[in-house]
Amino acid sequence: MAEGGRTADVMRTIRGRIAARGLAPGERLPSIRGLATSMGVSPSTVAEAYERLAAEGAVRSRPGSGFYAASSAPPPTLAEIGPCLDREVDPFWVSRQSLDGEPDTPKPGCGWLPASWMPLEPLRRAARGLARAEGAVLADYGTTRGPAGLRRLLARQFAEEGLPVGPDRILLTGSSTQAVDLVCRLLLRPGDAVLVDDPCYFNFQALLRAHRATVIGVPWTEAGPDPERFAQAASQRPRLYLTNSALHNPTGATLSPAIAHRILNAAAAHDVTIVEDDIFAPLEPEPSPRLAALDGLERVIRIGSFSKTLSASVRCGYVTARPDTIEALIDLQVATHFGGVSPVAAELVAGVLGNGQYRKHLDALRRRLARARRETAERLASLGIRPWLMPRGGFYLWCTLPDGRDAAGVARAALREGVVLAPGDVFSVSRTASDRMRFNVAQMGDGRVMPVLSRAVARPEA
Amino acid sequence: MAEGGRTADVMRTIRGRIAARGLAPGERLPSIRGLATSMGVSPSTVAEAYERLAAEGAVRSRPGSGFYAASSAPPPTLAEIGPCLDREVDPFWVSRQSLDGEPDTPKPGCGWLPASWMPLEPLRRAARGLARAEGAVLADYGTTRGPAGLRRLLARQFAEEGLPVGPDRILLTGSSTQAVDLVCRLLLRPGDAVLVDDPCYFNFQALLRAHRATVIGVPWTEAGPDPERFAQAASQRPRLYLTNSALHNPTGATLSPAIAHRILNAAAAHDVTIVEDDIFAPLEPEPSPRLAALDGLERVIRIGSFSKTLSASVRCGYVTARPDTIEALIDLQVATHFGGVSPVAAELVAGVLGNGQYRKHLDALRRRLARARRETAERLASLGIRPWLMPRGGFYLWCTLPDGRDAAGVARAALREGVVLAPGDVFSVSRTASDRMRFNVAQMGDGRVMPVLSRAVARPEA
Repeated sequence: MAEGGRTADVMRTIRGRIAARGLAPGERLPSIRGLATSMGVSPSTVAEAYERLAAEGAVRSRPGSGFYAASSAPPPTLAEIGPCLDREVDPFWVSRQSLDGEPDTPKPGCGWLPASWMPLEPLRRAARGLARAEGAVLADYGTTRGPAGLRRLLARQFAEEGLPVGPDRILLTGSSTQAVDLVCRLLLRPGDAVLVDDPCYFNFQALLRAHRATVIGVPWTEAGPDPERFAQAASQRPRLYLTNSALHNPTGATLSPAIAHRILNAAAAHDVTIVEDDIFAPLEPEPSPRLAALDGLERVIRIGSFSKTLSASVRCGYVTARPDTIEALIDLQVATHFGGVSPVAAELVAGVLGNGQYRKHLDALRRRLARARRETAERLASLGIRPWLMPRGGFYLWCTLPDGRDAAGVARAALREGVVLAPGDVFSVSRTASDRMRFNVAQMGDGRVMPVLSRAVARPEA
Repeated sequence: MAEGGRTADVMRTIRGRIAARGLAPGERLPSIRGLATSMGVSPSTVAEAYERLAAEGAVRSRPGSGFYAASSAPPPTLAEIGPCLDREVDPFWVSRQSLDGEPDTPKPGCGWLPASWMPLEPLRRAARGLARAEGAVLADYGTTRGPAGLRRLLARQFAEEGLPVGPDRILLTGSSTQAVDLVCRLLLRPGDAVLVDDPCYFNFQALLRAHRATVIGVPWTEAGPDPERFAQAASQRPRLYLTNSALHNPTGATLSPAIAHRILNAAAAHDVTIVEDDIFAPLEPEPSPRLAALDGLERVIRIGSFSKTLSASVRCGYVTARPDTIEALIDLQVATHFGGVSPVAAELVAGVLGNGQYRKHLDALRRRLARARRETAERLASLGIRPWLMPRGGFYLWCTLPDGRDAAGVARAALREGVVLAPGDVFSVSRTASDRMRFNVAQMGDGRVMPVLSRAVARPEA
C-alpha cells in the first residue's frame, strides 16, 4: 500500500481539493489527460492515482463515464482504544491489555514471545514461497481437515512422541483456542461441570464462561493436579477436564508420570473426557509424559498450535482425537467457520516446519529461555519476588510477591505507568492467588520494566 | 519445502536406508563428514539434509551427539477421504462434498469462484509485500479489533454506502461465518427462535442447529421475504432474523426498498435483531438498499467478508454493529479464538484492496459473471432446467428441474459421476424445494458438467 512519488502527488492533490470542497461531493474529477498535462505527469500516473483513490473510497468510478468525488465524506478517524484503566481485573483483563496495548508497551504479563524471538527469516522465506504457490492455495477454501501435507508432518511428530495416529485423525483449526472451543461446543451443555487446574490459563475460564459451564478448580501441585482432590472432583461426574500437562500455564510445572496415571484412572472411573492443550510442549528440553500418549487417545483429546514457537499471527491449531470425535468436530467447524484452517496459514506453517533452520531456531530458543528464566529470577529476587518453582522450560515464572502484596493492585499501578502485568487471581478459580504474579521472562528486556515494577510493588493501587 | 538437487539426493539416500532397515530405528546416522566424502558432496549439504530429515521426523538430533534414525516408524499415510456417497443429503452435504472433493472435480454446487477467477496477481504481490512486513505482522497476535488500517478502509467503503461508522465500530473476524457465529453466541440461548429466509444459505441452518435454535422459515419472494408472513413470524418474538439482502443465496434476488422498510418496522415492533450478511454485495452492478444503512445500525448487525471476490483462503470477515455489541463480541472472540483476525490475513487483504488493480478486477468479474449467467441459463434450458429469476448479479442461478424431478436424487446420481451439485432442499427449512437446484455459473466451464447433468436429470437415483 506504499504510494509511489508521482502517483502519491496526484492522490494528495485530489484529496486536498475534496477536503477543501474544491471538488464537491458527486462532482466529476478532472479528465485524466487534462490533469496529467497540468501536473506534468503521464496519463497512466493519473489513472493509477484515480484507481487507488477509488479503492480507498475517496472517489467513485462510473464505468464509461469517469471518476467522481465521493458522495459522502469518510467518517472521522477515532483515536485508537487506549488502556482501559477502569476495567475490572477479570479473566479478560490481561488479554485485552496485552493485545491492545501500544506496540512498544512492555508486557511481562502477556503470553507470547516478542516478534524478534520468533523465526522471522524462515517466515519471510515461507511468505516468498506463498507468492509462488498455486492459485488454490491463495484463493480457495481448503479441505475440511486442512492440507494433507501439514497433517502428515504432524502425524510424524506425534509418532515420535509415542502417539501413532494417521493424518486423517488430525483436524487443523484456526488456533488451539478454537480447537478447545470446538471440543467444548461438541461435548458441553450449559451447566455442565468442567475441571480445570487452580491456577490455570485465564482464558480457559473465559472460554468456559462463554459455554456457561460450571467450573471446578483442582489445586495444582509441582507435579500436576492434586490426585486426591482430582479423584474427589471427578466423582462429581464433570464432563471434561481441561489442562496443559507440559509446562503448565501459569506455573511452568510439568505433570509427573505417576500423577498422570492416577488422573487417567480417575477420569476413566467417572467417564471424564480430558482435553490436553499442549501448546508449550515444543519448549520442553526433553519430552514429558503426555496424557494423550498414555491413554492412546481413548478419552484424551490432544490440542496444540504453533503460536508460541513459530508465529501467533499465522493462525493454525490442531486437534487429534478418536475418529468419531474428529468427524463431529469437522461438521461443527464447517457450520461455525466454514472450511477449516486457512490454506495460506497452513502453507506458511508447512514452509517453516520444512525448513531446516526451524529446528535450530527451537534449540537456540530453548537455550535463550533458560538464560532468561535464570536472569529474571535473579532480578525479581532483588524485589523480594520469588518463583514458586524453577520450570524446566518455557517462558513463565509463577511468583510470590513479598509481604502478601495484592497483585491486582500492583498490576493496576504498573498499567498506569504503561507496563502490563498478569496478576495471580485472574488464573485462579478460587481466587486464592492474590499475592501471585506470572512473569513472561522473554518480555523483561525493556529497561522500563524493573523500575516500574519496583515502584508498583512498593505502592500498589488500592 | 522444495528440495534442492544434492540435498534431496542425501535425503533420499538416508530415507532409503531407513526404509530398508540398513539403518535400524535409533541407530546413529553416518557422520556428516564421512557421508559427504562418500557421496562427493559438501559437508554443509549433508548437514542441511539431516536438519530437514529431522524437521520431518525421519531422524532425530541429539545436541552434541549427532543424528539418529527415528525410533518409531511414521504411521502409514491413509488415503484421503473421497466423496461420501452414502451420506444423508443434509445441510452439511454440499459443504463436505464441495470442500473435500478432488481438486479437479467439477463443482457447480459450490459457493465460490474458481481460483482462476480470483485476483491472483494482486494476491501474489501482497504475499511478496508480506515477506517484507515488520516482524509483528508475521509473528505477533494482532489487536482485538484487527489492524486499524484495514478497518479505516472498510469505514470509508461503508460511508460510501450510506453507513457512516467509525473504524472502532468495526470488528475484524476470521470469516463472515465466524462473525455470524459470534453474534449468535452473544444473543441466542438454546431454544430461541430465529427467522431465516426459505430458501436460505444451507450453512445458516447448520450454524443455527449448532446453537440449538428453533429455526422458522419465512417464504422468500423475488423482492425479499414475504412481508405478511414476516410480520406474522416476527410476532412470535424470535430473537434474530438472519438474511442476505443483496444477491440472496441461493436465489440471487435482492430486497426491494419497500419490503426493506416493512421488515424493519416489523422487527422494531417485536424487538427482533437483524443480522445482515452482505458477502455478495461487491458483486452487485449497482448498490441495493441495505437494511443496515436504513436502520443506522440500531437493530441491524452487518456482516461481510472478502471470500467471494478477493480470496477464500485468506480468512477475514467483519462485523459492524452498535458499540456495546462490538465490545461484547470482542470479549467473546478473545475467549473463543484469542486475538481477532490473523495479522497476516489482514495484511494480505489490505494489500489487495489498496492495489488499484483490484477495482478493475471487480469490474471485469461482474461483466464475466453476467455473461456466464446468460450462457448457463441457455445451456440449462436445453435440459428443461429454468431459473426462477434472472439475478442482477452474482454467480447463482436458482432453477426448477423439469417434470418435478427430485433434486437430491439428481445430485446423488451426478456425484457418482464425480460432479457436485446443490439440491434445493438443503436450502429449504420447510423442505419444499425438492425440485429446485442452485447452479454456480462460474463453475460450469468443465466439459463434464452438462453430459453428467443430462444423464442425472434423465435418471436420478431413488
